Amino acid sequence: MIILGIDPGLRTTGFGVIEKHGSKLRYIASGTIKTGLEGALPPRLKVILNGVGEIIAAYQPACAAIEKVFVNVNPQSTLLLGQARGAAITALVGADLDVAEYTAVQVKQAVVGTGKAAKAQVQDMVSRLLKLPGLPGTDAADALGVAICHAHSLDTLSMIGALTPGAPTLRMKRSRLV
Amino acid sequence: MIILGIDPGLRTTGFGVIEKHGSKLRYIASGTIKTGLEGALPPRLKVILNGVGEIIAAYQPACAAIEKVFVNVNPQSTLLLGQARGAAITALVGADLDVAEYTAVQVKQAVVGTGKAAKAQVQDMVSRLLKLPGLPGTDAADALGVAICHAHSLDTLSMIGALTPGAPTLRMKRSRLV
Repeated sequence: MIILGIDPGLRTTGFGVIEKHGSKLRYIASGTIKTGLEGALPPRLKVILNGVGEIIAAYQPACAAIEKVFVNVNPQSTLLLGQARGAAITALVGADLDVAEYTAVQVKQAVVGTGKAAKAQVQDMVSRLLKLPGLPGTDAADALGVAICHAHSLDTLSMIGALTPGAPTLRMKRSRLV
Repeated sequence: MIILGIDPGLRTTGFGVIEKHGSKLRYIASGTIKTGLEGALPPRLKVILNGVGEIIAAYQPACAAIEKVFVNVNPQSTLLLGQARGAAITALVGADLDVAEYTAVQVKQAVVGTGKAAKAQVQDMVSRLLKLPGLPGTDAADALGVAICHAHSLDTLSMIGALTPGAPTLRMKRSRLV
């Protein structure tokens, strides 16, 4: 199963593609979509739409996960980030992908083991878990982290599903993942 | 020329479609896209994407305009509104439409003649300008107002273009429109 992780941003959207074989994870690709610093918002969102579309066409993921973003101290920045994230999610759902959402704390917990990990620790652990020859950039590392977090969640979900099948487990899944 | 106006929102996205023949405007359609109050964000953004897509397919607009949104007192609401607006813009640019942006003040100025007009005045003037048999709902009225505002801007742009053709007019256009 191929998983696409997205770390959304208006200037830079990070992406990470991994393959999950049982509990094994394999690195496929990662990088960033850059919209530049200038210009009107609609063409910049189109860059995100087209960029995500190209990644989906190239790697044919089965599902996607995107990081939940924080409210910024600057409300105008919050608005811009929200619109960029909306564009990325729209590109994903427009390609009929299910999109899971994880907070940065959940991603850090899944990758490093603690929700308080620093950016550099996420880069380092992503590199180890996927056996990369070097450190990925921070945006790509975050995106790969989201994909890894989703892979772990899928394991947890199927494990809980195997132990206690049926509707009530849906509630349990959520509490286990937080 | 058919113009699509959008008043973005997460629960309710208003849309308005008008036809511009020279300086004459004709009502074609208006309404709302509703995502419901509950559920995860990605499926709700998909409702906006598909809704805008259906409107474009049905009315084949030549261009689009969308209202700029305000920063809310609640930052979480700002983030949600931003994502909904991002989804609407993405749906528009994904259909290769140019997207103009106007503030609520610009729309009110274009429709009512004053940037401080109340919502009811916008509804009333939209109804008069487009010779509607009754008042449109507030979201639809705002969306029709954005479309009317864009129609007026296109007139202003072509007028200035006719008087003083060439690159420097680009700067003038902006100051005239604010």
